[in-house]
Amino acid sequence: MIPELKTTINSEFLKLENLIIRNSCEIEQWFRSKWLDQEAPFYASVDLRNSGFKISPVDTNLFPAGFNNLNPQFEPLAIQATTIAIEKICPEASKIIIIPENHSRNIFYFKNLLSLTEIFKNAGLEVEIGNLDSSFQKTEYDIENQKIVIYPLKKENNKVFIEKDGVKFTPCSILLNNDLSSGDPKFLKDITQTILPNTSAGWFNRRKSNHFKFYNEVAKEFTDFLNIDEWLINPYFDVHEDMDINNEDDLKIIAEKSEFLLRKIKDKYTKYGIDHQPYLIIKADAGTYGMGIITIQEPSEIMQLNRKKRNKMSTIKDGQKVSKVIIQEGIHSEEILNEAVSEPVVYTIDHYVIGGFYRVHTSKDKNENLNSPGMQFFPTPFEQSCLMPDQGRDCNDPPNRFYVYGVIARLALLAAAREIYG
Amino acid sequence: MIPELKTTINSEFLKLENLIIRNSCEIEQWFRSKWLDQEAPFYASVDLRNSGFKISPVDTNLFPAGFNNLNPQFEPLAIQATTIAIEKICPEASKIIIIPENHSRNIFYFKNLLSLTEIFKNAGLEVEIGNLDSSFQKTEYDIENQKIVIYPLKKENNKVFIEKDGVKFTPCSILLNNDLSSGDPKFLKDITQTILPNTSAGWFNRRKSNHFKFYNEVAKEFTDFLNIDEWLINPYFDVHEDMDINNEDDLKIIAEKSEFLLRKIKDKYTKYGIDHQPYLIIKADAGTYGMGIITIQEPSEIMQLNRKKRNKMSTIKDGQKVSKVIIQEGIHSEEILNEAVSEPVVYTIDHYVIGGFYRVHTSKDKNENLNSPGMQFFPTPFEQSCLMPDQGRDCNDPPNRFYVYGVIARLALLAAAREIYG
Repeated sequence: MIPELKTTINSEFLKLENLIIRNSCEIEQWFRSKWLDQEAPFYASVDLRNSGFKISPVDTNLFPAGFNNLNPQFEPLAIQATTIAIEKICPEASKIIIIPENHSRNIFYFKNLLSLTEIFKNAGLEVEIGNLDSSFQKTEYDIENQKIVIYPLKKENNKVFIEKDGVKFTPCSILLNNDLSSGDPKFLKDITQTILPNTSAGWFNRRKSNHFKFYNEVAKEFTDFLNIDEWLINPYFDVHEDMDINNEDDLKIIAEKSEFLLRKIKDKYTKYGIDHQPYLIIKADAGTYGMGIITIQEPSEIMQLNRKKRNKMSTIKDGQKVSKVIIQEGIHSEEILNEAVSEPVVYTIDHYVIGGFYRVHTSKDKNENLNSPGMQFFPTPFEQSCLMPDQGRDCNDPPNRFYVYGVIARLALLAAAREIYG
Repeated sequence: MIPELKTTINSEFLKLENLIIRNSCEIEQWFRSKWLDQEAPFYASVDLRNSGFKISPVDTNLFPAGFNNLNPQFEPLAIQATTIAIEKICPEASKIIIIPENHSRNIFYFKNLLSLTEIFKNAGLEVEIGNLDSSFQKTEYDIENQKIVIYPLKKENNKVFIEKDGVKFTPCSILLNNDLSSGDPKFLKDITQTILPNTSAGWFNRRKSNHFKFYNEVAKEFTDFLNIDEWLINPYFDVHEDMDINNEDDLKIIAEKSEFLLRKIKDKYTKYGIDHQPYLIIKADAGTYGMGIITIQEPSEIMQLNRKKRNKMSTIKDGQKVSKVIIQEGIHSEEILNEAVSEPVVYTIDHYVIGGFYRVHTSKDKNENLNSPGMQFFPTPFEQSCLMPDQGRDCNDPPNRFYVYGVIARLALLAAAREIYG
């Protein structure tokens, strides 16, 4: 099952999709040339939105969870890509410790850890899970007849390890599945083992605006290559720094910037005959987990923000204060599965697309953020791989739609690679 | 569907299978360390035989056909592995010419070419097919609504090309899907393009005994690593050189060597309580396509070879004379699918296992060669990948059986790598 697009596909967008499908061979060469001297993030998931007139990445996660939501049929693809990544980065590795989110007790997150463990084991690595939190005690969970044990991380001679049945398990490499939004962990500062990905990919260090600055660059190179309007895959954005959400002057500046962005978007809508209502997403530049996010359609809404919304904007995960926001063109989610708004999420290991799933949400509006706290979604795995476009078929047929997802996700991945490795 | 083993599994063999499944993680590390500084053949198919007391490669083909017989579900795995191989060997390549078998007009072979074309296109290479035969004229075939065009190869300034609609198509690389059993092609001698695999992998240059010499080496390293009898995965063999099948003295020597081998095999059968009848395969050392092969159970049969069998032994493909034979322990095929003898064939690209199929033959005996001229077989694709052993299940359950196939095939691949790259 693949979601339907609940809107007429815009002719310019159709042109883009057709260009991508018909030129898949050249696009693969283009990507190959880009990765030639660019290290890829170890793994990633990219949230996409498809409005039928525009498709864009909205979030590029470098510590992806949700591996349990992928189609088991394509697990071999993940295993093969992991084998390749390990061969490149740490070929002599035989053991790895996964560092999970500190405080998660979410059964779905544990399933993600089980899936990751399985993939790494099949790629030839012994895997254990070690929690970074200094107060953590060894904990065992039963997840649908599978046992998962999380150990407290220990350190000695600049090497982290866990103790299992009284025996030290000292890995060659460490896989971070923790987005480090609460800061650069001192515990990992002086260790000599390989950390995948590097801690600099953590949210304490990343800025959404920085990611989208690099995405601008990549999107321009790609659309120049295809000779089509960059806007079709790239949302406009602006930032406002050193701000306080409770300061009227800051709100005024945000409102002005919003007005300017909305005008630019409306011009594009007019140009392409799009009759949707443009909107903006305003979010903490260092934010994650859908916290610190508001949606507006008119600049005036900024000045009228009530206390609740201001509070929502002012803090993000782990209580961090928001001092910089990114104001970004909203992409309407027009993909509908079982009458529910659906957002594709594409997974990569090294620079290979290994699958994806739809985040299907029944109670949200198409303009809202689908990855917000406490939200419930139904994951629907992609039924096919993202690697096999079919030139003989309509560009919205499943293999072609999935291929387009894979292409846009890889553009975001390339942006993330430049962002964290330069 | 997976074939049944029509024999009681020998306890020592069960021990081997269990060792492989339970130690899959260590085995993957072992392979990783082996490939660290060993280039892999670009692609290969490995014919295996499983007798329930022994599993071995019987043929390692470095110009594999039959890609059309693989499970389409795992095509993404082939695409990903091809992408990786291209990135390693010729990352700047954008065009490739496949050189097929010279004279094949077999519809299944054309389907193989279509499958290969599809895989390479999805890995980002423009593909054309060019025939090496100097007298070849451009030919178009319709294969189940798909058009396949084979062009005559041309050469200019040390580069081969084909002419398509009056336009030169000059590739960066050439993929050989022609086993070169008729000799080292002069046409390719001085060209500057990358040839995959190198022409030295051609049958004009390879010797079965040389391959099995390297396989001896690899099998010993692997079984030392697992601490189990090497014989369980390695057939005994000997060779006889500078011979003429019509010379009595040569036949005598072959008979003596056969007697010695049969005695060694019988000792193993006694040791492990195997009540099968041992047999030997005698074949041209440079042979392919199942030509020049005979089967014996007693040394005396050698001296009684009739004219027909001697003739069968004396020439191989393209009329080459046989002057050296390999005398090899026969492996009984005990895998039975729909009451037919089945032989697994495993496919690799670079050093990654990308799938396989069973060659299912209804009219042959289990001790006969299943890849002989004019033979008809029913290809049955592997239903699962060879990458996901399941320690929680019996070692003959499908994912585990497929994993064991993949391991043994990779041992043969490693032997082939040492054979052609040193």
